[in-house]
Amino acid sequence: MATQGQVITCKAAVAYEPNKPLVIEDVQVAPPQAGEVRIKILFTALCHTDAYTWSGKDPEGLFPCILGHEAAGIVESVGEGVTEVQPGDHVIPCYQAECRECKFCKSGKTNLCGKVRTATGAGVMMNDRKSRFSINGKPIYHFMGTSTFSQYTVVHDVSVAKIDPQAPLDKVCLLGCGVPTGLGAVWNTAKVEPGAIVAIFGLGTVGLAVAEGAKSAGASRIIGVDIDSKKFDAAKNFGVTEFVNPKDYDKPIQQVLVDLTDGGVDYSFECIGNVSVMRAALECCHKGWGTSVIIGVAASGQEISTRPFQLVTGRVWKGTAFGGFKSRSQVPWLVEKYMKKEIKIDEYITHNLTLGDINKAFDLMHEGGCLRCVLKMNE
Amino acid sequence: MATQGQVITCKAAVAYEPNKPLVIEDVQVAPPQAGEVRIKILFTALCHTDAYTWSGKDPEGLFPCILGHEAAGIVESVGEGVTEVQPGDHVIPCYQAECRECKFCKSGKTNLCGKVRTATGAGVMMNDRKSRFSINGKPIYHFMGTSTFSQYTVVHDVSVAKIDPQAPLDKVCLLGCGVPTGLGAVWNTAKVEPGAIVAIFGLGTVGLAVAEGAKSAGASRIIGVDIDSKKFDAAKNFGVTEFVNPKDYDKPIQQVLVDLTDGGVDYSFECIGNVSVMRAALECCHKGWGTSVIIGVAASGQEISTRPFQLVTGRVWKGTAFGGFKSRSQVPWLVEKYMKKEIKIDEYITHNLTLGDINKAFDLMHEGGCLRCVLKMNE
Ligand SMILES: NC(=O)c1ccc[n+]([C@@H]2O[C@H](COP(=O)([O-])OP(=O)(O)OC[C@H]3O[C@@H](n4cnc5c(N)ncnc54)[C@H](O)[C@@H]3O)[C@@H](O)[C@H]2O)c1
Ligand SMILES: NC(=O)c1ccc[n+]([C@@H]2O[C@H](COP(=O)([O-])OP(=O)(O)OC[C@H]3O[C@@H](n4cnc5c(N)ncnc54)[C@H](O)[C@@H]3O)[C@@H](O)[C@H]2O)c1
Ligand SMILES: [Zn+2]
Ligand SMILES: [Zn+2]
Ligand SMILES: [Zn+2]
Ligand SMILES: [Zn+2]
Repeated sequence: MATQGQVITCKAAVAYEPNKPLVIEDVQVAPPQAGEVRIKILFTALCHTDAYTWSGKDPEGLFPCILGHEAAGIVESVGEGVTEVQPGDHVIPCYQAECRECKFCKSGKTNLCGKVRTATGAGVMMNDRKSRFSINGKPIYHFMGTSTFSQYTVVHDVSVAKIDPQAPLDKVCLLGCGVPTGLGAVWNTAKVEPGAIVAIFGLGTVGLAVAEGAKSAGASRIIGVDIDSKKFDAAKNFGVTEFVNPKDYDKPIQQVLVDLTDGGVDYSFECIGNVSVMRAALECCHKGWGTSVIIGVAASGQEISTRPFQLVTGRVWKGTAFGGFKSRSQVPWLVEKYMKKEIKIDEYITHNLTLGDINKAFDLMHEGGCLRCVLKMNE
Repeated sequence: MATQGQVITCKAAVAYEPNKPLVIEDVQVAPPQAGEVRIKILFTALCHTDAYTWSGKDPEGLFPCILGHEAAGIVESVGEGVTEVQPGDHVIPCYQAECRECKFCKSGKTNLCGKVRTATGAGVMMNDRKSRFSINGKPIYHFMGTSTFSQYTVVHDVSVAKIDPQAPLDKVCLLGCGVPTGLGAVWNTAKVEPGAIVAIFGLGTVGLAVAEGAKSAGASRIIGVDIDSKKFDAAKNFGVTEFVNPKDYDKPIQQVLVDLTDGGVDYSFECIGNVSVMRAALECCHKGWGTSVIIGVAASGQEISTRPFQLVTGRVWKGTAFGGFKSRSQVPWLVEKYMKKEIKIDEYITHNLTLGDINKAFDLMHEGGCLRCVLKMNE
């Protein structure tokens, strides 16, 4: 292949400083080293974690960097020792690695692989603890081990899920983050069973994917809670059966839900990132067994709290990252489920733009009508 | 029987006011009404929940009352419709009822029966919402539905566990609270598996019972944490393999444990009732799967807190009441296990006194050398 082993110069959206518009730049992308994969990104979506780091509120955010972690593309070249993918493979880069060798991967209890975490957390690659991105020799940090707001990116091979080449990349890019997170929170973390009563706080992409997961798990009631009533119409299509807007009540929202459900819900999911809602989500659970799963990412330094009696009387407080899915093993399986029409993806995509419009796409995230905006990269 | 249907006058320790010595009084105990059982208490132990309510810190504490909830005795008479026990049966009164009919009992997910809770919480019996205890016509409140600091007590039939008549009542009285709580926290709530690494915060009766439960579950390391190093010697007999006194370290105790265990423990148990220790117990758990169980009862109004990231990265926060054991069904099974020498009881009993010495027994609770003090009632 012409580009193999060469530096590729391509377009990428660079975040130079917190809260300043991203700049589309010509970026140099170095060839993949041992255990690395260079991917041509065809489509990327935006997620709130991108916006969080971009906003400067993430104390671990590093600038300048290339954000983005919900994407799909085609392998351009691979470094030494990479055996599981080859040029031409269709892939989804995964911010959650799966090495199958570390203590975490071998535990059988979690999807949180530890293999490349120290590098991805520091915005570099494991091999030489350096970035593969640069502009005129000045390095640009990686982000979440994915950096998909670039036409080409380099990721660790343990972070690449090889998928069905028939799958439409402009859709399945969403399987890089939000949709699996919601589905997996229900299927893997909470393990919702038929007949269960479920409450979902926040009806963005993640909350709607929770609804879809709960519906497929056979939940009898799926109560959607959002402060934006415009969310309710779309939510019906994802399985939400009842809606509650906390603004319509004087009582605390946990009390509203306890009253609505004769004692509380069996499972609740926080899909916002608000620590007081996390408390409400726990406290609206049924005594004796109600389980609350935190999905939303709270601002740095914020803490959750409750009276310990809530737990002593049987409620369980959990959380989930990427819905507990093992990325390399299970993202391809989610792609298959989409191809068999067993899970939705298209319905989460409310906007399609191009990489050049990325700042507009960030603005859209604050609008109630936007779930996911997918950017086309190759123009 | 001579006393059946009659008011019985007997000795009981009455708590007239918070924090004032209990007074041994002649108390009138009314006959059991429908669904009630009058029990001759032969032995009772003291537990920290008695001391908590007695101290006045329990906002739901009612005075004057008869405390006590860890006891054993013999059924004296039964009210109308009581079929599962009869006079002469050896029993353990249980503060956690089990009606087998309510939403909780039928859920298969919890031991927290709801049947008589509103009455026991209000210090009265369900039937007429009145007390069966009085002194010269002035009612004295029940406590936890058990009130075992009396030679005779009246309890709801759903709160009576019928046990093997061969079992020594001066020992098995401990199966009314502390020992099952610790064992069950391990077996039912955490479900500790062979090879697991366990940390126990607080090495009183509850903490030692956790150790015993963890040992029998096959835990590979059982790390005892206490600020009183005198606790360590006895703890070895219960299975604790390593000891940590937080006072010996400058680092936060959660960090000490994470360092000791290459990333954190698989299970932790808080057996103190201290909200900062509850936080430490959660945060010393291993990322990805560590589960922390709150057993200790914190002072009213106090709250637990942590960063939500602790849960999002896979730790689970739970609690337990009476170790998740179904009282009527499982206390007799625990008695059998004791008779077969599969669980310890004798080793928790450090002091034996009589009802008349009850104030001395309360004093003993504050001494490091005291685990359980058993009072003989019938003299
Ligand atoms: N744990 C993980 O692995 C993981 C993965 C992806 C996303 N996330 C997090 O999940 C959260 C949700 O992501 P999203 O893309 O669905 O976000 P979103 O912004 O599209 O949706 C959030 C919804 O919450 C609603 N909301 C805001 N405040 C509310 C309140 N006080 N009460 C009720 N509703 C309220 C908003 O109206 C909105 O509909 C974010 O915090 C994101 O960072 C976590
Ligand atoms: N959830 C339930 O169903 C249930 C049932 C019974 C008892 N309890 C509660 O369990 C707790 C323990 O009961 P117990 O009878 O074993 O009490 P205990 O007082 O005998 O034991 C507590 C131990 O904790 C140690 N300790 C105190 N502060 C500490 C600290 N900061 N760090 C480390 N160790 C510390 C003490 O030295 C002592 O050894 C109490 O809060 C009791 O109310 C709960
Ligand atoms: Zn995301
Ligand atoms: Zn791994
Ligand atoms: Zn007790
Ligand atoms: Zn019941």
